[in-house]
Amino acid sequence: MPLSSDVLTELHGRFGPDSLLTAPEDLIPYSFDGTAALSQMPGCVVFVSSAEEVRWVLQLANRRRVPVVTRGSGTGLSGGSLPVPDCIVLCTVRMSRILEVDAANLTMEVEPGVTTVQVAEAAAAVGLFYPPDPGSMRISTLGGNVAENSGGLRGLKYGITRNYVMGLEVVLPDGEILKTGNKCVKDVAGYSLKDLFVGSEGTLGVMTRILLRLIPKPAAKRTLIATFPAMDSAAQTVSDIIAARIIPCTLEFLDRTTIRCVEDFAKIGLPDCEALLLMETDGHPAQVADEAAQMAEIARRNGSDSIRIAADEAEATALATARRSAFSALARVAPTTILEDATVPRSELARMIRFVEGVAKRHRLRIGTFGHMGDGNLHPTFLTDERKADEMARVHQAFREIFDEAIRLGGTITGEHGVGVAKKEFLPAFLGDAQIRVMRALRRELDPNGILNPGKMFD
Amino acid sequence: MPLSSDVLTELHGRFGPDSLLTAPEDLIPYSFDGTAALSQMPGCVVFVSSAEEVRWVLQLANRRRVPVVTRGSGTGLSGGSLPVPDCIVLCTVRMSRILEVDAANLTMEVEPGVTTVQVAEAAAAVGLFYPPDPGSMRISTLGGNVAENSGGLRGLKYGITRNYVMGLEVVLPDGEILKTGNKCVKDVAGYSLKDLFVGSEGTLGVMTRILLRLIPKPAAKRTLIATFPAMDSAAQTVSDIIAARIIPCTLEFLDRTTIRCVEDFAKIGLPDCEALLLMETDGHPAQVADEAAQMAEIARRNGSDSIRIAADEAEATALATARRSAFSALARVAPTTILEDATVPRSELARMIRFVEGVAKRHRLRIGTFGHMGDGNLHPTFLTDERKADEMARVHQAFREIFDEAIRLGGTITGEHGVGVAKKEFLPAFLGDAQIRVMRALRRELDPNGILNPGKMFD
Repeated sequence: MPLSSDVLTELHGRFGPDSLLTAPEDLIPYSFDGTAALSQMPGCVVFVSSAEEVRWVLQLANRRRVPVVTRGSGTGLSGGSLPVPDCIVLCTVRMSRILEVDAANLTMEVEPGVTTVQVAEAAAAVGLFYPPDPGSMRISTLGGNVAENSGGLRGLKYGITRNYVMGLEVVLPDGEILKTGNKCVKDVAGYSLKDLFVGSEGTLGVMTRILLRLIPKPAAKRTLIATFPAMDSAAQTVSDIIAARIIPCTLEFLDRTTIRCVEDFAKIGLPDCEALLLMETDGHPAQVADEAAQMAEIARRNGSDSIRIAADEAEATALATARRSAFSALARVAPTTILEDATVPRSELARMIRFVEGVAKRHRLRIGTFGHMGDGNLHPTFLTDERKADEMARVHQAFREIFDEAIRLGGTITGEHGVGVAKKEFLPAFLGDAQIRVMRALRRELDPNGILNPGKMFD
Repeated sequence: MPLSSDVLTELHGRFGPDSLLTAPEDLIPYSFDGTAALSQMPGCVVFVSSAEEVRWVLQLANRRRVPVVTRGSGTGLSGGSLPVPDCIVLCTVRMSRILEVDAANLTMEVEPGVTTVQVAEAAAAVGLFYPPDPGSMRISTLGGNVAENSGGLRGLKYGITRNYVMGLEVVLPDGEILKTGNKCVKDVAGYSLKDLFVGSEGTLGVMTRILLRLIPKPAAKRTLIATFPAMDSAAQTVSDIIAARIIPCTLEFLDRTTIRCVEDFAKIGLPDCEALLLMETDGHPAQVADEAAQMAEIARRNGSDSIRIAADEAEATALATARRSAFSALARVAPTTILEDATVPRSELARMIRFVEGVAKRHRLRIGTFGHMGDGNLHPTFLTDERKADEMARVHQAFREIFDEAIRLGGTITGEHGVGVAKKEFLPAFLGDAQIRVMRALRRELDPNGILNPGKMFD
């Protein structure tokens, strides 16, 4: 259904043709995000360039009861920025200024349209470090990262996006501009509203400024790859590393299917094996040397059949890039790739991986599994074809079983991708009545007319 | 005003005399917390020992519209657990079990009445580390730490209580039991309710279980004390340490008045000087050695007239204990000691310390200032006498000026003590209309009858 002509007339009065898309052919690129098999045409797309413009759009939307879906680069993997019918897509990519890098206070302030890699590079330019590194970091925006509370490969040691947000400027659904947080490491004056907005998936407000915390850049880093004849040996290696009180900055797992796809794609000489661990340690050079040696020894003791230590930065980058290409590599081999992020406490990882393999076999599905083994965040990826209704039904059933098992093991239905529409049906059972009731109340209180991302996360 | 006899009858029906205090002489110890010059008699004190008992009390309170003030050890410094007239003090100190230490997942689950030092020791016993260390950690409870989002000396490097809370069981004001969070390092399923409860100062629910994150215990630590002929040299040393990309685990400042009081009290041989820095670095032994040498060199370059490196653990502990005794030491020299925690971005610290000195002089007040210089969290402490009305008025005016300046410099009115009643009048101006409006709405939504800690933080 198209937007009402009154609403379009108002939008045309405020935004020029370069900032307002309404033609169907222009809307198509905004009808989906990074989530497979989901698309929906929006009513229009508005490119905002200031908090004032965001406020104007939200006030219009509230007056006219038009749904608004906020969007950055659209790389999300749970349909968080998927349009809802007849909505205004509010796109923040033009708000892309780095407003300040404050090395003395270890902070950076940015607009929401800045990409993650730009933040990382601006920090590195002054010897500082912004750790969150979601897979899509070369194009994902900070606004999207904060809305989804994005993770990445460094979660175990360095935490996730939430841990690096110190303050926010947010336009509330009624158009009021709220500023929360500051450059103080400690501030306990009132409830932590920033933590309510981080991870709220565009349902509580639209961020227009983000104050980030930075840390010193680790002086050294070392990257290792170890291959294993069995998945259990890789899992035991991870347990033993933590038991040795080592917290690597990266501890990634790839299964046989993923390894083959990555090797076909990236050609970096990965051997044929059942399981592979990518391990990185960073920090003081002596600490890095010690930890790398200990991790290699632990892998060897657990039956690793080959251990490769990157000789230099270039080789380390090649190895890490191979891991980063896992999703793209898997995506090449099937028409539809459905990536999930069931997550369990680290101690349950081996059990969970075996369970996932069993589910795939039972439902006759092809699956590649990789993920962040240090933080229990798995990415079972089904290689399928959305045109085959029967297979898709089995995929859906397989996911339901995987999520049930993750919950049973004390885990969660989404470690880093968010709920959006992809996990919505699983959320109430996972959270329970009390949490859902409170979340609903908070949302209704902030957005009484339900204009922001309606139908997402929970109803 | 006493509690209505109906309410007392109901309470007596459920709690035996060892769990319910009603006699005035028994209530006196619960009529104040660690906040100077504030006291108020409660209607009764109930010692709960389970979530079920908490639920029962809150349901009664809701039915009868009786205010409930939750309390642990009562060490708070902003009046957060100060009774309100006619209230039930709900005391959680008997819920003091450590429920689980899970070394494989680096977590610990505790009841709210466990003390901070018990958590620290239980972690250390398995080679792990719980970093938050509020000044009162030997007696403060985890419930109080989470409710106030307590800080401590290690905030800059390790963060504060919020950063170590992974999950909570909370009894909501209507008696419903809500469980949020789990052992997963990554979990983005829904709004982060735990972050709403952390730092909510007993206004949104009563915590009955707390799941904590632990980290490996640093392998080595080194402690230094440097004295300076001028406060600016100490401040420049702090800036230069951060500029050298060193994040010490402790970076504490004491001014001349505080140093003298601490030396009188602890007799550890502190020299007479204008300013003193206590610096600690921890981590890999080689890193610790490098950083300690660099910090000593930076202090020397900034004119430090003496640098003392602790020879061993015992001396390090003595030096750290001296700093920890600062408040007690100051409290000995005046009838009333009012400790504040104005906080500014680190880059504004020298300016803020000078401002505090000027304010004290202008209002003819005695002041000792110490605090966490690494994270901008100052503790200007007025040495006064609450029986002198005129002097107390000047103290109040001085604080007003200090908070105004902290806000002007981009800081906050409370870095780690909370709002309670002590900072309540300053909160609205600091937060601004939009934040206060949202916080009020959230509170009303969760506690529509306003039974939990009414009158605290904001109305």
